[in-house]
Amino acid sequence: MLEKIDLCKSVDKAVYRREHEEYQERLGALQRSLKTAGIPVIILFEGLGSAGKGVQINRLIQALDPRGFDVYASSRPTEEEAMRPFLWRFWTRTPEKGRIAVFDRSWYRRVQIDRFDGITKKSELPEAYRDICSFEKQLTDDGTVIIKLFLLISQKEQKHRFKRLEDSSETAWRVTEGDWRRNHEYDQYLRINEEMIIEATDKNYATLKIIRCVTEKLEQALATYRANQAKAEADQNAEKHAGQTKTEPTSTTGELTSIEPKTDWGYENGILSGVDLTRTMDRDTYKQKIDQLQKRLEILHSEIYRLRIPVVLGFEGWDAGGKGGAIRRLTSHLDPRGYQVCPTSAPSDTEKRHHYLWRFWNRMPKEGHIAVFDRTWYGRVMVERIEGFCTEEEWRRAYQEINEMEAHLVSSGAVVLKFWLHIDKDEQERRFRERMENPEKQWKITDEDWRNREKWDQYELAVNEMLVRTSTTYAPWIVVEGNCKYYARVKVLETVVEALEKKIQEKTQSRNAKK
Amino acid sequence: MLEKIDLCKSVDKAVYRREHEEYQERLGALQRSLKTAGIPVIILFEGLGSAGKGVQINRLIQALDPRGFDVYASSRPTEEEAMRPFLWRFWTRTPEKGRIAVFDRSWYRRVQIDRFDGITKKSELPEAYRDICSFEKQLTDDGTVIIKLFLLISQKEQKHRFKRLEDSSETAWRVTEGDWRRNHEYDQYLRINEEMIIEATDKNYATLKIIRCVTEKLEQALATYRANQAKAEADQNAEKHAGQTKTEPTSTTGELTSIEPKTDWGYENGILSGVDLTRTMDRDTYKQKIDQLQKRLEILHSEIYRLRIPVVLGFEGWDAGGKGGAIRRLTSHLDPRGYQVCPTSAPSDTEKRHHYLWRFWNRMPKEGHIAVFDRTWYGRVMVERIEGFCTEEEWRRAYQEINEMEAHLVSSGAVVLKFWLHIDKDEQERRFRERMENPEKQWKITDEDWRNREKWDQYELAVNEMLVRTSTTYAPWIVVEGNCKYYARVKVLETVVEALEKKIQEKTQSRNAKK
Repeated sequence: MLEKIDLCKSVDKAVYRREHEEYQERLGALQRSLKTAGIPVIILFEGLGSAGKGVQINRLIQALDPRGFDVYASSRPTEEEAMRPFLWRFWTRTPEKGRIAVFDRSWYRRVQIDRFDGITKKSELPEAYRDICSFEKQLTDDGTVIIKLFLLISQKEQKHRFKRLEDSSETAWRVTEGDWRRNHEYDQYLRINEEMIIEATDKNYATLKIIRCVTEKLEQALATYRANQAKAEADQNAEKHAGQTKTEPTSTTGELTSIEPKTDWGYENGILSGVDLTRTMDRDTYKQKIDQLQKRLEILHSEIYRLRIPVVLGFEGWDAGGKGGAIRRLTSHLDPRGYQVCPTSAPSDTEKRHHYLWRFWNRMPKEGHIAVFDRTWYGRVMVERIEGFCTEEEWRRAYQEINEMEAHLVSSGAVVLKFWLHIDKDEQERRFRERMENPEKQWKITDEDWRNREKWDQYELAVNEMLVRTSTTYAPWIVVEGNCKYYARVKVLETVVEALEKKIQEKTQSRNAKK
Repeated sequence: MLEKIDLCKSVDKAVYRREHEEYQERLGALQRSLKTAGIPVIILFEGLGSAGKGVQINRLIQALDPRGFDVYASSRPTEEEAMRPFLWRFWTRTPEKGRIAVFDRSWYRRVQIDRFDGITKKSELPEAYRDICSFEKQLTDDGTVIIKLFLLISQKEQKHRFKRLEDSSETAWRVTEGDWRRNHEYDQYLRINEEMIIEATDKNYATLKIIRCVTEKLEQALATYRANQAKAEADQNAEKHAGQTKTEPTSTTGELTSIEPKTDWGYENGILSGVDLTRTMDRDTYKQKIDQLQKRLEILHSEIYRLRIPVVLGFEGWDAGGKGGAIRRLTSHLDPRGYQVCPTSAPSDTEKRHHYLWRFWNRMPKEGHIAVFDRTWYGRVMVERIEGFCTEEEWRRAYQEINEMEAHLVSSGAVVLKFWLHIDKDEQERRFRERMENPEKQWKITDEDWRNREKWDQYELAVNEMLVRTSTTYAPWIVVEGNCKYYARVKVLETVVEALEKKIQEKTQSRNAKK
């Protein structure tokens, strides 16, 4: 394929000036429309060293309003970034609705430069491609437009440019050994890439091709968005109209139409109905066990810090199921510098303007650290599903998205456990009443808790489906019998201790094997 | 002073349990009240190695709702942090209104551990103390409560604890050489500290003293806040009452009472009135000069990157004064990986919940990078002053706060320049009309621009005062004669080029002197 590309394409200066100005205006106007429409855009520049990515990015952003874009240079990861899963630094930089993110090099680094330099091993390639595909798919499914550009010059031209840079003492430092190595192996390096090609020998030609390509892709995205909007509105109007004629005669009765809960066949008698809630533990056994486990965990915490193992613990469960108490027992003896409790409440305005997983990516732990999530990304398939905060298509898609995220965490070396704190309906009522009667605890209970309780059956279906679809061998769900708090807390700690011990053993063995 | 402290103080276990529980409840309730009141709190833990900071922090946060606090461990700065001014990593972590930030070690590191280890030189101490004082004062002036705790154990006890840690293979890594060095020089190390002392030999005693101290300080802060609120309300009611009786008779006329602009004597005939706006430049000279300057700047950009010099360029000026155009000419030839344009619009909700300088601290450039601010922190003494978005006391205080911030940037090695793009009232009107008539530019002009124009005289007073109070030798204001865009753009570029050349020369000389 590459043989057929004419790298010497160029453009006349006058044509360039005229066309470029025209496109700049179109692109500027387009940016304002995309902002209004709330469409996030990612433009990524890949390419050979010295192909002129810097110049081209700068020319492109000159057309844009600086209030609406960010440029990220993804050279070597920083210390902080290197201590997190590979996709972390890209996930946390995904643009919010209506903004543009320009990446100078991107997640392709892993299958290009890093592959070429041997940092990514051949055996890791399938996994790397899987991660990249799932990342891009999740974003585009959520409405992000991704435009990928690859700047190409010939081997000879690259050599020439490197030499010119090296000739001047002011620019010589910009050419690295790696650059030369890749130049020498030009053919091999190129075989790795499969991106959209920009012939970059003539700067102006490249600039024009880039701005044309970006403008056209964005215009297309905007048109699609508008067509979908129009269709949705038309559908809604039709529905409203149909609804009006139907409900008008009965609307005088003042009664609300009851909405049948959707039943997902097969999940009514799911996992939860089989949980043995009679399990208990007496106070003395509890005191003794919890004390032992906390001391053990303190030591394991320092071990995972040394071995640089990240740990992700998710807590879900019925309201008043005992999440808070279990988390407190889990953390009370840990070094606060090595763990963080991440409470999840309704998303903020900024968080709403991002992919629903974005806010969780932001809080993923560094190597050697523990992140405890009090409520998690599973809100998508529970509260968001039931309250209609997302579409059915969105929550159905979420199972796979979540599994992929957890797979990425685990393949980056993390321990991932998810706890469902289970109680029955009577126990919940008893706890709610206790909270209302105790002035110290009243703030913990709100009308919303009572409202959620009325949807118990809907939640039970959703939880059953969630447990089936997202309990994986690498990131299992642990259903905790929670009617007895003592029993529940001990089970949580025991599970964490066992999982950490197993992981520490594995890691130590693989380290020793390497030596 | 230290000789008089009884480090062996201890507490009976039963007393500890009872009192601790009591204080935990008080503190929990207090946290909720502080959140409602919107009071930000900083609690910092300093102390000798192995004095038990980790345990004490953990015990303290067990009483708190995890949705309302963050713990920051300030050991060695990360790569990213080391490339920024010393206070950057603390400024960016100051808590928003109603939140608590707990620091394990803090900005005192610089005058303690770093001083002891010789990283902070003796000659740098006065500056370090000045920075710390100004940082704390700015925060407390803005309503933040700062509680500082210093955990103390005896030299003998510390030695004993280090040995115990070293005895076990699981904990030995936690004792560093620096720890031992500081233990050997216990007396000398302590002489550096002047914090509130917590006797930490007995863990439970320390825990109680800490929670008591924190609770009492916060109760006091809340009481003061409430008293001030009540007073402000009473004043307002009194005013309203007085106002009602006065304005009632005239309110039927439908006319607005005109508000006399406050005149600050001495600033009517200030700097702006002396600016020579007749200066011009012809197109050919402009083309030639701008081309030269841009090429020169491109080279200097790569020099400052090599020499790790951060550059902060602030742009202010009348609406339609030409900021955007000047910034575009400044950046059009730069490598986008090394500069960022930071546009400043109305603060977001999150930004409003922080000190007004917080959002600018967040965007301060790394070493070797240029940050161009399109509108700046000077909004405090211009739009916020004139529109009444802050109190008179606040904007009056801001001159010094801003000078201190810029001094800190410059002493960290940055180049700081501030440009005021000046045009006269007629020129502004001409440009406004041009924008309205050109469909491509209409989006640039809003009703607000016309409204601001009506306050020209008020702004002129404020700008004159700002120029006098904040043009310093280390971070000067440059008033740019802007009626002729060509002249203005060239002046901006020339000034930047000169300043960078000077700084590069200084830095190269001091580097060579060291060799």
